[in-house]
Amino acid sequence: MSASRTDIAGRTATLLEAMRTARPLVHNIANYVSMDIAANALLAIGASPAMVHAREEVAEFVGLSAALVVNIGTLSTPWIEAMIIAADAARGHGKPWVLDPVGAGATKLRNEAVKSLLPHRPSIIRGNASEIMAVAGGAGVAPKGVDSANTTQEALAFALSLAEHEHCIVVATGAVDIVTDGHRVVKLANGSPMMAKVTALGCALSAVTGAFAAVGTDKFDAAVAAVAVYGIVGEIAAEQVKGPGSYRVAFLDGLELIGPKEIESRLRIVD
Amino acid sequence: MSASRTDIAGRTATLLEAMRTARPLVHNIANYVSMDIAANALLAIGASPAMVHAREEVAEFVGLSAALVVNIGTLSTPWIEAMIIAADAARGHGKPWVLDPVGAGATKLRNEAVKSLLPHRPSIIRGNASEIMAVAGGAGVAPKGVDSANTTQEALAFALSLAEHEHCIVVATGAVDIVTDGHRVVKLANGSPMMAKVTALGCALSAVTGAFAAVGTDKFDAAVAAVAVYGIVGEIAAEQVKGPGSYRVAFLDGLELIGPKEIESRLRIVD
Amino acid sequence: MSASRTDIAGRTATLLEAMRTARPLVHNIANYVSMDIAANALLAIGASPAMVHAREEVAEFVGLSAALVVNIGTLSTPWIEAMIIAADAARGHGKPWVLDPVGAGATKLRNEAVKSLLPHRPSIIRGNASEIMAVAGGAGVAPKGVDSANTTQEALAFALSLAEHEHCIVVATGAVDIVTDGHRVVKLANGSPMMAKVTALGCALSAVTGAFAAVGTDKFDAAVAAVAVYGIVGEIAAEQVKGPGSYRVAFLDGLELIGPKEIESRLRIVD
Repeated sequence: MSASRTDIAGRTATLLEAMRTARPLVHNIANYVSMDIAANALLAIGASPAMVHAREEVAEFVGLSAALVVNIGTLSTPWIEAMIIAADAARGHGKPWVLDPVGAGATKLRNEAVKSLLPHRPSIIRGNASEIMAVAGGAGVAPKGVDSANTTQEALAFALSLAEHEHCIVVATGAVDIVTDGHRVVKLANGSPMMAKVTALGCALSAVTGAFAAVGTDKFDAAVAAVAVYGIVGEIAAEQVKGPGSYRVAFLDGLELIGPKEIESRLRIVD
Repeated sequence: MSASRTDIAGRTATLLEAMRTARPLVHNIANYVSMDIAANALLAIGASPAMVHAREEVAEFVGLSAALVVNIGTLSTPWIEAMIIAADAARGHGKPWVLDPVGAGATKLRNEAVKSLLPHRPSIIRGNASEIMAVAGGAGVAPKGVDSANTTQEALAFALSLAEHEHCIVVATGAVDIVTDGHRVVKLANGSPMMAKVTALGCALSAVTGAFAAVGTDKFDAAVAAVAVYGIVGEIAAEQVKGPGSYRVAFLDGLELIGPKEIESRLRIVD
Repeated sequence: MSASRTDIAGRTATLLEAMRTARPLVHNIANYVSMDIAANALLAIGASPAMVHAREEVAEFVGLSAALVVNIGTLSTPWIEAMIIAADAARGHGKPWVLDPVGAGATKLRNEAVKSLLPHRPSIIRGNASEIMAVAGGAGVAPKGVDSANTTQEALAFALSLAEHEHCIVVATGAVDIVTDGHRVVKLANGSPMMAKVTALGCALSAVTGAFAAVGTDKFDAAVAAVAVYGIVGEIAAEQVKGPGSYRVAFLDGLELIGPKEIESRLRIVD
């Protein structure tokens, strides 16, 4: 049932190439902490970022964009309103949109924001294990801030049922990254522990996932491609640096430099 | 009519030295994405940055500052109100202010914000070609997000008429950078395509332009100097790096290291 | 009366180790400019950052956190309200909180914000010399933006009386860093002028101070440890780089790499 490593590597390389050719405009309603790294990650990988959050213009801007990414990291009421308007516009335009439920489970405001956004049908939900478990209604799950206290293996059942229930793709990232549509599951084992030492690298992955979703007709393949490329870049960067400052630099360099060769030689799919 | 390359290089070096001596406090109402890089660019080149945006304090803070820079990148209604108050205060104090019309033409909110700000008479307007064309009323111009879909050559006529009509300096940046007061035109050909791979480098140029405007009595010369220094630094940085992450680092280093020698040897003025 | 250099180095190394083991969740109501560097500094040194600012959730989030850091850099009315709610919650939970009074003295809004926050009893106040003098009511002190126009020697008397009056620790950073509880005083002379060339490094120190306050029962020792580690990292980084871009990178690397050996060999206490 699961696709072979070679198939996934091939599709990922094709999608990366297609995305770079299309250079999709990705509209982000990002959190303040992630804006710089998310915009730079999109530019480095070959997409075109925009950060636009005012209620008065988000719907109009969704119309100009190829994908929308909504990140609830630094939430406030006016932003939640804008997120709902934008998500609704994306759905109306048939444009893909990605939800990053940062800190879901930590506070009522976050849980309510997620509850308000889900009916607008995200194409892809990407979070760490605890966030995915919280979104899936894993009662009693209280993530420690924005870092993950659970492994993605623990989140797998939650991810599967969330994806099936919401008819969307769910991505849970961690030491092993999980991508599922509720039926198919791909587990990827690239990346590096260093990725957790740079703030908002997960948020930036959500942004990059939006870029792939903009060009991939199958959102499952698009999500797998985004996670694969990102993890491989994270792995290569870790081989070159001595700390989190230089890691961030090498990571952004790597997003520009990665090509089919690195994907083919390094992609690690696990059971 | 156009000044010689040697004259421009000499004036630019003099203004850079004067700016570093004065260390002007530049008050930015910046967008969220650009705040980090704009503040760091101002510090690196030798100025003193502050980011202040509350309606309750912007006018007071303009009084403490040597120049104001207004950037409409991540717009919202309260920020537009503060921008207008600040621009009005700058005009009242006779202090220079720079308008960066990010994404002008993309949405009604942006066009209206620009329309509200122009009567407060910016000293300098700096944008990419599409933004300048949109501000100039180039009907039918729909910039693709915050990147430029037009060349500055296409924007030249728009820049000239905008500068003449608004009695200000207009800077359109791209492969060739154009600076005009509606009569005089200087075209600069330094820089690197890498500059477009780092988010908000254009916004940071607007901030740096504010620092030069704070010390240059002729705002045309000040704008030329800012663009010249910035492009030369961008060119030097591109010779040293392998991707956008390390480019950003080398670029900030370069802003501190540039001096008269680099300006003299590298400045490229074209017809 | 003053502790010996060896004692301070030993306690600092112990606190650093304890903090890395605890990996405290530090809740920041940060300014926009500092969010990226503050979060990255906390991750690099070994803590866990979160940026949460909505009135609706700050009190709840304080309950999940080990310390709170309030930074008034990019102020606005809704944020001031959230800061007061959060400070009050921290006090109620008996959790340490750090106040960074960025730009205190520059505008009425800032002075009023500080006046509203002080009754909620910060554990530690950290600012540059001018800010500490302004908070202490040093009449006629008008800091130049967010940089310091005064030396910490000039601020010493203000720091002492502020600490005594507010029953808190006061940290004034500059060429010489001062830590006092109103009675004890430690003066540290590590660091580098390069630290002032990277935006928001002072704000990030306030965040790091929150991490140490989360594990140190004596907040005076915690503040000394934070300042000591930070200054030593700043000194080491300055030996390796050529400009402010690469300095920021080396500084973040250094926060991860510093250990007891560097503290023991480099700590500089002055009279």
